Amino acid sequence: MKKIIVASHHKLANGFKNTLEYILPNTVEIIDISAYLENVSVDKQIDEVLSNFTKEEQIFVFTDIPGGSVNQAFIRRLNDYNIELISGTNLSILISIATQLGEKNIDKDTIREEIINAASEIVYVNDKLASQSLDEDDE
Amino acid sequence: MKKIIVASHHKLANGFKNTLEYILPNTVEIIDISAYLENVSVDKQIDEVLSNFTKEEQIFVFTDIPGGSVNQAFIRRLNDYNIELISGTNLSILISIATQLGEKNIDKDTIREEIINAASEIVYVNDKLASQSLDEDDE
Repeated sequence: MKKIIVASHHKLANGFKNTLEYILPNTVEIIDISAYLENVSVDKQIDEVLSNFTKEEQIFVFTDIPGGSVNQAFIRRLNDYNIELISGTNLSILISIATQLGEKNIDKDTIREEIINAASEIVYVNDKLASQSLDEDDE
Repeated sequence: MKKIIVASHHKLANGFKNTLEYILPNTVEIIDISAYLENVSVDKQIDEVLSNFTKEEQIFVFTDIPGGSVNQAFIRRLNDYNIELISGTNLSILISIATQLGEKNIDKDTIREEIINAASEIVYVNDKLASQSLDEDDE
């Protein structure tokens, strides 16, 4: 089964893993990294996880916030592995990438497109319902 | 302390709570709802949580995905409470709303702006670094 990495300050990564496994069972193996929770450096945690991958295979890594230290730690590994690093993770981007993972690599344009889609899923639902109601009134 | 609700299929909500409490300690009380984990209906879980709020106070609710049943369950309560319902949650939108919560309500334009900001934080880091490197080459 294909593997992805989700990494965060504390337990958010584990939350993503738990919910993604519920929504998409047996689709992808999710390796979660919870930084600063135990007395182990984030660099050591990351190196242990990356040792499960080859230098050539496409590795998807999802982190919590772009400016955070967890994301910075993965930036330092971008030249050593074939990492696709996505930050600001929400469940939508995880679902869309997890469902497309297969034998072939996912190309960069597809990744860009799925990030735009996932960003559009951060929705102010009150507004969305109001505009849907207006649309219905127009019909 | 001001309260916010984070709700998801399974444990993602708890992950957001755990990480937000680490990044912004003592800023906001986070009530997490993990749906379909135990033999209690999501409606019952939500009604129990909402009973801690008055009908007038502004309640921020963050859910996992817009099309999901957890989000739908909150849509059914929009007319009964003063709920601001945001879906597709990532850590950035939680941080920005949590840091602005105070005695006054957050106005709708601010919520819209913060959603746009949070959406722009879903970043393909490889691309961002490449464009930064190009910018530096131009200097």
